Amino acid sequence: MKCDYNLIRESERENLNLNPLQRAGVLTKEAREALYDFGDGYSVCDYCEGRLDKINKPAINTFLEDVADFINADLVRTVHGAREGKFAVINKICEAGDTVVLDGNAHYTSYLACERSKVNVIEVPTSKDDENKITIDKYKEVIEKSIDKGIEIKLALLTHVDGDYGNLTDAKAFGKICQELGVVSLLNCAYSMGRLPIKANDWDLDFVVGSGHKSMAASGPIGILGMKSKWEEVMLNRSPKYPKKEVEMLGCTSRGAPIATLMASLPYVKKRVDNWEDEVKKSRKFVSNLEKIDGIIQIGETPTNHDLVRFKTPILHEIGLNHPRKGFYLYEELKSRKIVGIKRGQTQWFKCSTYGMTNKQREYIANSFKEIVENLS
Amino acid sequence: MKCDYNLIRESERENLNLNPLQRAGVLTKEAREALYDFGDGYSVCDYCEGRLDKINKPAINTFLEDVADFINADLVRTVHGAREGKFAVINKICEAGDTVVLDGNAHYTSYLACERSKVNVIEVPTSKDDENKITIDKYKEVIEKSIDKGIEIKLALLTHVDGDYGNLTDAKAFGKICQELGVVSLLNCAYSMGRLPIKANDWDLDFVVGSGHKSMAASGPIGILGMKSKWEEVMLNRSPKYPKKEVEMLGCTSRGAPIATLMASLPYVKKRVDNWEDEVKKSRKFVSNLEKIDGIIQIGETPTNHDLVRFKTPILHEIGLNHPRKGFYLYEELKSRKIVGIKRGQTQWFKCSTYGMTNKQREYIANSFKEIVENLS
Repeated sequence: MKCDYNLIRESERENLNLNPLQRAGVLTKEAREALYDFGDGYSVCDYCEGRLDKINKPAINTFLEDVADFINADLVRTVHGAREGKFAVINKICEAGDTVVLDGNAHYTSYLACERSKVNVIEVPTSKDDENKITIDKYKEVIEKSIDKGIEIKLALLTHVDGDYGNLTDAKAFGKICQELGVVSLLNCAYSMGRLPIKANDWDLDFVVGSGHKSMAASGPIGILGMKSKWEEVMLNRSPKYPKKEVEMLGCTSRGAPIATLMASLPYVKKRVDNWEDEVKKSRKFVSNLEKIDGIIQIGETPTNHDLVRFKTPILHEIGLNHPRKGFYLYEELKSRKIVGIKRGQTQWFKCSTYGMTNKQREYIANSFKEIVENLS
Repeated sequence: MKCDYNLIRESERENLNLNPLQRAGVLTKEAREALYDFGDGYSVCDYCEGRLDKINKPAINTFLEDVADFINADLVRTVHGAREGKFAVINKICEAGDTVVLDGNAHYTSYLACERSKVNVIEVPTSKDDENKITIDKYKEVIEKSIDKGIEIKLALLTHVDGDYGNLTDAKAFGKICQELGVVSLLNCAYSMGRLPIKANDWDLDFVVGSGHKSMAASGPIGILGMKSKWEEVMLNRSPKYPKKEVEMLGCTSRGAPIATLMASLPYVKKRVDNWEDEVKKSRKFVSNLEKIDGIIQIGETPTNHDLVRFKTPILHEIGLNHPRKGFYLYEELKSRKIVGIKRGQTQWFKCSTYGMTNKQREYIANSFKEIVENLS
């Protein structure tokens, strides 16, 4: 039956997509095969006996143990995404009116999770320069000052890698100060889990969340919630009326294609994390190639420690001022070269990622920018 | 890369699956095509400008309008499932300690959504016979008695069709009494939206929720939350810090394969709902064929008004008492006939659905039960 919703997606198939949101959620071949078998509604529930996390066909039980091992956490559940994981933790740990500290580079959903839980937020400011860094010294200072004022901090949330600058924060130092100050810690790994190694227990973190669709080669929506075993009783408390069912998970969370694809991709994702240093090298090389163009300057921490990088681009803005297509020229010039993922009309800055691309593709992209600037300035 | 999680699903492909959970979530051909294009992570977000519900490629904006029209609601959002929709409503409408009324046939997730929101529950009892019916007279009586006792009822939740007996409740009468008594109403349509017509406004309901994976030919997890426009401001309030973002939705909800498949299936789902009366006829015929076997008796309302039907089966239990495979014989006998979906070891009762099957398939299933009883009793 004909459907008119424009349900065709060529961005990923026919172009090089620079959108950081899209780079690490591309399915593996194995995940595509899993989609074929597990596309239908409640596909993973054929052999359920009341607990999603205990299903053994497909082996969700073993898979969860493997994910726990992979991120060095005691215990893992799937949730619908990093945001839903953050909300679950905040909703469970805090009551309305409580106070949570978060970093100034936190994703908008960290704020929304706090607002949905009706808790107050204290923000740790970023450095006042182009790097926009969050230091753990500053984080500690903010918590200490709050405690001095008599404010009880129920939870501290740190963004491991933020989505604006790709800055990598010091998760281990964060875990340490939270332990010292007696504050529950939550690390948002949406842009790190599945890209780089996560060591939840080594870093002494109470909770970590990750995103399957953002960084673990899975169909959305799915996320990972990892925790220390000491939180099991609180976080995964069972319903008095339905003693098999975990209240905060509403019984079951991921019940179809997303969990099947994440399971299928896990072996590959585990392996690619081992190549993270090489990815960072390639990302730095890409940055240095782009910075050879006068008027394109990376911002955020330098050198970058991530594939998501942000640039200020006065030269691209200048070109747009005199171009007949105004600011739209950049999108159009890139599109004509089969490069997408930078917003239409945007020229003063952009963020992008070349995660997983070949050296040749990365060079082609850098050269395309060079060519556009040379032709039009 | 090899994955060891037993990620193969033959239940649906090679057998007739009687599990009511699985019957109406089977993807359409169009949804399978959408899976191909929208399998990757954040696949629907290429052209997002900050609001999932406003994306026009694919046309999520038009799709949501069409769903609203389909269920006769003013306004619709996608959520991760009926349970997440119920939780969103309860979490938004109620505060901790408030009281919600729900029916005694409510799904376990209705209770969990209440527990997660820390609200109290008053239950409307079912009839004390094999029908286990919820009448709206009884529902009204419970609300009135509670009000008389000085208890403020913040929300009344009714299960449109329950998952134990397949009983269809009178949604219109429910909407009417809730209006009269000044109580906010929520109808759980997990087993009805996508199978039979939903008329949210005609029935004067404040909120309705549905399930894409259970009843709308979509990949899980996805649900529908429909509401009257008067609730928009409360239910979909925006973040003070991020004015584009809806707090209770945590910004965006469905961000990948499930929404793409639901969109692709909608034209078909709309059409199949028109055939509902015929489905019920076929379901009744199936029941009457099974009831020809001595010792198989349908329970729940009779004649049934749904495809999900429940039987008590003393004859199947008796056979198991003397069978070398004990209670497992039934599962094994059915499996050898390529019929699945009834739990291993269960013989005293079962629930099943033949939704969407051909007459020939339904007859084959009824004959298989007949044959098993004849051969073994």
